[in-house]
Amino acid sequence: MLNILFSAKPAAWDEYQAPLNAAFAEAGLSVNLAREHAPQDVDYIIFTPNGPVTDFRPYTKTKAVMGLWAGVESIVDNETLTQPLCRLVDESLTAGMVEWVTGHTLRHHLGMDLHILHQDGVWRDDSFPPVAAKRPVTILGIGALGAACGQALTALGFPVTGWSRNPKNITGIRCLHGDDGLHEALTDAQIVILLLPQTPDTANILNADTLALMAKGSFVINPGRGPLIDDDALLAALDEGQIAHATLDVFRIEPLPEDHAFWAHPQVTVTPHIASTTRPETAAKVIVDNIVRGESGLPFRYLVDRARGY
Amino acid sequence: MLNILFSAKPAAWDEYQAPLNAAFAEAGLSVNLAREHAPQDVDYIIFTPNGPVTDFRPYTKTKAVMGLWAGVESIVDNETLTQPLCRLVDESLTAGMVEWVTGHTLRHHLGMDLHILHQDGVWRDDSFPPVAAKRPVTILGIGALGAACGQALTALGFPVTGWSRNPKNITGIRCLHGDDGLHEALTDAQIVILLLPQTPDTANILNADTLALMAKGSFVINPGRGPLIDDDALLAALDEGQIAHATLDVFRIEPLPEDHAFWAHPQVTVTPHIASTTRPETAAKVIVDNIVRGESGLPFRYLVDRARGY
Repeated sequence: MLNILFSAKPAAWDEYQAPLNAAFAEAGLSVNLAREHAPQDVDYIIFTPNGPVTDFRPYTKTKAVMGLWAGVESIVDNETLTQPLCRLVDESLTAGMVEWVTGHTLRHHLGMDLHILHQDGVWRDDSFPPVAAKRPVTILGIGALGAACGQALTALGFPVTGWSRNPKNITGIRCLHGDDGLHEALTDAQIVILLLPQTPDTANILNADTLALMAKGSFVINPGRGPLIDDDALLAALDEGQIAHATLDVFRIEPLPEDHAFWAHPQVTVTPHIASTTRPETAAKVIVDNIVRGESGLPFRYLVDRARGY
Repeated sequence: MLNILFSAKPAAWDEYQAPLNAAFAEAGLSVNLAREHAPQDVDYIIFTPNGPVTDFRPYTKTKAVMGLWAGVESIVDNETLTQPLCRLVDESLTAGMVEWVTGHTLRHHLGMDLHILHQDGVWRDDSFPPVAAKRPVTILGIGALGAACGQALTALGFPVTGWSRNPKNITGIRCLHGDDGLHEALTDAQIVILLLPQTPDTANILNADTLALMAKGSFVINPGRGPLIDDDALLAALDEGQIAHATLDVFRIEPLPEDHAFWAHPQVTVTPHIASTTRPETAAKVIVDNIVRGESGLPFRYLVDRARGY
């Protein structure tokens, strides 16, 4: 019998209790899944940063902390956490992100807003977009999410460049890395998509200098993390026409305050952190599979590298 | 020396003259491409229905009429046309259509308009779309364009059903046909895309009866031909909430008159016949390749079946 502590908001418990128990049963694991356990008896913690557990020191026999979120920036610096920490990598979260990123890339590529916003009887048939093959897209961050988005866009004909801190090799994507690679990846990009983790290294990666590298009149799409962008630099680039439009799903403060300049700016689309969401049925399976691995003596999947920060 | 007559609007001549001559030169064909030739000397006609030639009887030695348009409904009934007629099947036209269809499918799937139209400071994070796997899409018409669109949507995870009058078999698409197949294809469809040719059989294929088969609150996307839809039935279905939104690129009369109810309806997006366009560089190559085939004694590609109408 494994003791599994579920430490998240009550609403998450309502969503996850049944799918997790079903997944444990299917895996043949005998567990006691609960929101309270004596700390010294807990085998695994299923965790979100906004739940009750903040001090991991009493969880002396806990074998791993299984995050329910893809991002770990709000837990990775917790010094009491010495147990292995796993991110959630969920196929349905990836699928949702691919849909959102592909949809907004095509929206900007095709110039849809002109028609969605102007149903005024004027037949505006004088401008066609180039084909996707002539619209270079750059994705900063080519982990599981970025790579999947890049491959979906490649399949539609976009020339896709991906950038990561360390070298990667992903079929169909021109992969660049490091500081020189960043410069090259952004130069003349017409659509830039941000899917980097939030770390000290990635803060403000899109700033006045890097925005200036992009093609005149290009597009920014940020479903990653708010602090990846220098907000003031982006607003200036929008006002100058260097950036034609920004679609932003994540912000330094969420919900984005009503009086933030992004809401009022005609070239900004704010979406409320909906680019993708964890879906309980698939997420429960991923977490239970990982616990099964641990119990079988296999290494955990999706382990966070604490030094790197993701 | 082949005499090639270019019969289209003057603006098309400006666009096509250079790419066609370049493609003929590259193919090693010696041609005299002009907008006027003595009819009895013409070997091939490159043609749009809005150009000067309407009576094909004087073109006694013409080996084929090469359409510059994908649709042939405005020429196929011309009884003076006894020469072989080829449609334009252009990869860049297909690519453009795939981009437009995929973009608007994702737009409706993700509910983008809510955010594009309401940048009012309200953080609307309470509704997530299902993943694409739970959003059945049906494409009426699975020729070159419909099949390519269906495969792009399949790659994104949508369950795609395709319907055609005669049986087809396309990888990744559930293919149905005939009258019974039409009923099954539309039943519970959440997004229906129209890519049928315009023929007497396909007129008003989306009408009060067939719209009623679709899922409540579903979406219609028409980049095919205007007469495929019974306009009044669609307006009624929108008003009743049976159809949540229609994005229409083609109409019975184009440009769509300013006072047409589609412009004013909040659940309709009118786009000005821009879903895809022929691009001169690629179209010229396709036409020249087909003329080369004819000169080599090979059968023409993309021949229109006059009895079937496309």
